Amino acid sequence: MARVLTLTLNPALDLAIRLPSLVLGAVNRTDATHLEAAGKGVNVARVLVALGHEVAVTGFLGGDNDGAFVRAFADWGLKDAFLRLAGDTRINAKLAETEGRVTDINGPGLEVARDDLTALYAALEVRVADAATRPDAVVIAGSLPPGVTPDDLAALIGWLRGHDVPVWVDTSGTALNAAIAATPSAVKPNETELAEWAGEPLEDAASRLAAATRLHASGIEHALVSLGDEGMLWVGPAGRWQATPPRVEVASTVCAGDTLLAAMLHGQLAGLPAEDALRLASGLSAEAVRHVGVGDTHAPDLDQLQQCTRVRRLDDNAREDS
Amino acid sequence: MARVLTLTLNPALDLAIRLPSLVLGAVNRTDATHLEAAGKGVNVARVLVALGHEVAVTGFLGGDNDGAFVRAFADWGLKDAFLRLAGDTRINAKLAETEGRVTDINGPGLEVARDDLTALYAALEVRVADAATRPDAVVIAGSLPPGVTPDDLAALIGWLRGHDVPVWVDTSGTALNAAIAATPSAVKPNETELAEWAGEPLEDAASRLAAATRLHASGIEHALVSLGDEGMLWVGPAGRWQATPPRVEVASTVCAGDTLLAAMLHGQLAGLPAEDALRLASGLSAEAVRHVGVGDTHAPDLDQLQQCTRVRRLDDNAREDS
Repeated sequence: MARVLTLTLNPALDLAIRLPSLVLGAVNRTDATHLEAAGKGVNVARVLVALGHEVAVTGFLGGDNDGAFVRAFADWGLKDAFLRLAGDTRINAKLAETEGRVTDINGPGLEVARDDLTALYAALEVRVADAATRPDAVVIAGSLPPGVTPDDLAALIGWLRGHDVPVWVDTSGTALNAAIAATPSAVKPNETELAEWAGEPLEDAASRLAAATRLHASGIEHALVSLGDEGMLWVGPAGRWQATPPRVEVASTVCAGDTLLAAMLHGQLAGLPAEDALRLASGLSAEAVRHVGVGDTHAPDLDQLQQCTRVRRLDDNAREDS
Repeated sequence: MARVLTLTLNPALDLAIRLPSLVLGAVNRTDATHLEAAGKGVNVARVLVALGHEVAVTGFLGGDNDGAFVRAFADWGLKDAFLRLAGDTRINAKLAETEGRVTDINGPGLEVARDDLTALYAALEVRVADAATRPDAVVIAGSLPPGVTPDDLAALIGWLRGHDVPVWVDTSGTALNAAIAATPSAVKPNETELAEWAGEPLEDAASRLAAATRLHASGIEHALVSLGDEGMLWVGPAGRWQATPPRVEVASTVCAGDTLLAAMLHGQLAGLPAEDALRLASGLSAEAVRHVGVGDTHAPDLDQLQQCTRVRRLDDNAREDS
């Protein structure tokens, strides 16, 4: 339906290691080590392509170990527009023990030079100028690699907005603050990230809503806040909303936020009514947490998850929608 | 000088992770994740090529992630004769904490089908029949992957011996016992592996020597036993010997045995006197433990390490050679 470009500046190869229990200082054996192309922008892209959009992925990949990415992009139907840098894309290891403990070991990102950023701008310029490739929206997701500063991120958002391209951003820490100051179309902090931006603890639902409202008032058209199993807040053109999905058994929350953002962007691109967008985003991200990976748009009970999602409008003269 | 083929049936990509200290259940950050082509036969090959031989490497690699191997073989000057299987070569993660604790997490090997073994024999047949590729020795090193039984290993050794090719073997457990029963030219157990083969604990130097002597008497031309920082035993055509290198600061013992085997094979191929072969093998493997990776034949103090190695002949009318 629409054309989307997702930008992952600091992608990773995820190494999922399952084992009964990790014994430190010993030789452990695992029945599975699987290396998967990952990165928040790539996750968002997978959901958007499953929802029917034409999606290209860009950012920086290490040219020396891009095989898993090249194969994955082909499998997932994503157009590969990543720039290649010399060296290896980092590896993030995730050790999952049978009892449920998960230990992450995240590698350092590949250093990005000024020339690499210049090359990214040049590639974006060509893409934006050509009607056949111009994106209807750009998603910038994930952390910043060494060599890319929060100011660089703000400049990139400003450049895209200057070219009239809607920009949706999901990052954290100082990068999130810099991004918000550059007023992208949407940001999706979680509760902790929202509190960091607000500069104060958000102790109850009212203070959370107030902070999200301030975020929207600062110029962010769509202030999305992911609340874990409590669902999400959305302060946007259609007002202030909360959606709460049904409880599901949690296997992995890693891709839930990426799924939520992708589905909300889909709602905008497809012109869905607010309630429908919220049901889809909350239901699909509840679907995502039941397993490793992004939400499955073909899950047989996705309709049920959406219907069991409680959607409420939180405006002054609020009414319960479900 | 000579032409060697090394065979690694169950290679791995080694993921070396350095970190200050691992906190279980948390997100850890590391300044280095590096994926390296590994496997005992590949390690042996690196040493042999550095010692001036023409070395080809074979066995089974996953075709989906062979990039690191292809680049490494080119960098190291090894001829790539690995067969490719569908899927990924396993990843072995090694977590090294600053205080010295090392935790290994070894992945499952790639399943080898009967047809794959048939293809390996076909490739070996071509290689052995052609004067331009016929190896002067074959080294079979490392564990057996799923689908390859100890009997398969014994059959392979028998086939190579039937084609008059010297075969040097380094493996462990039931695979080692099956290999020994097939009488290869050389085996290199460590003390634990020797005790397993002997079926009894080896509590002192005399019982170790007696077991190595029985191993030689069973038909193994070169019975090599690696003894860690005590060096090595060699019971072979030149009699019974022990070599003890000088103490060095230990950084990693992972490649010491592979280095030792490669240098001893070099001694045979180059026709070195027994003492010279033992000095080189012990000195170079002491060099190897000072760092990650195989022994460096260009280490500036390699001569000194060799000269400081104590070599003794252990035969009945023994004399001290150093």
